[in-house]
Amino acid sequence: MRVAGIDPGLGTTGFALVLSEGGRLSAGPAGVFRTPPGEESGARLLALHRQVRGFLQEERPDVMAVEELFFNRNITTGIQVAQARGVCLLAAAEAGVPVAEYNPQHVKVAVTGTGAADKHQVIYMVRGLLRLDRDPSPDDVADAMAVAICHAHTGGRGQ
Amino acid sequence: MRVAGIDPGLGTTGFALVLSEGGRLSAGPAGVFRTPPGEESGARLLALHRQVRGFLQEERPDVMAVEELFFNRNITTGIQVAQARGVCLLAAAEAGVPVAEYNPQHVKVAVTGTGAADKHQVIYMVRGLLRLDRDPSPDDVADAMAVAICHAHTGGRGQ
Repeated sequence: MRVAGIDPGLGTTGFALVLSEGGRLSAGPAGVFRTPPGEESGARLLALHRQVRGFLQEERPDVMAVEELFFNRNITTGIQVAQARGVCLLAAAEAGVPVAEYNPQHVKVAVTGTGAADKHQVIYMVRGLLRLDRDPSPDDVADAMAVAICHAHTGGRGQ
Repeated sequence: MRVAGIDPGLGTTGFALVLSEGGRLSAGPAGVFRTPPGEESGARLLALHRQVRGFLQEERPDVMAVEELFFNRNITTGIQVAQARGVCLLAAAEAGVPVAEYNPQHVKVAVTGTGAADKHQVIYMVRGLLRLDRDPSPDDVADAMAVAICHAHTGGRGQ
């Protein structure tokens, strides 16, 4: 199974392909899509859309996994993230890739075994599970890998 | 000047074309874009994207006016609205249509003269300003007309 993990943002969107075969995970292409900081939202969403669509067309994942969105901090940032997330969901629909959404807590449990894990534990476990030779960076990449691993582990159950 | 007003939503998006010539306003095509209620977000955003893009390509407005987004009520609905709004901004960028964003309060003042106006006053004034022979309905259409009128009145100033 080929799982694309996406961690949407207007400025920086983490992406990662996670391959799962017989319970064994491995990492495919991963990184971040960036959009030009000085541009208006529309132009940035356009740049994001092109990159996500290109990634999905290139890698042909079986599913795109994303975290559900919760607004617990900055509402303005939250609106921008939601707008970027909408464009990512659109890109998946255009590419015919089904989307699986996971509660952030559920992702932590799937990756670390505990919902109380901090960012460092998530990065440590992601690195171990995907047998990476260094910590995934920036955090957006680790988050994209984590939600993809979550889907690979639960096989689409427990969403 | 041809101003497209858009009032984004996942289920129902209001749209309206407002024509402004020498300070005189008139109404072009207006209505709502609906998306299939039973479908997942991605499929609904795809349907919305097609409709908004088609409208902009057909009507070739000089600008697309939308309200700024504030979350004061339901956060879950707010996330859906923001995702839909992102897709509308994307469609404008794809069509090369610049976007003007207005504070909801600013729209009320521009249309009714007071930021304390209620929905009925907005509808009454929109109907009068565009010389419609009936109240614009549903509310999403009136809201799309109102933000377009706001842009036509202020000419892009005071955003």
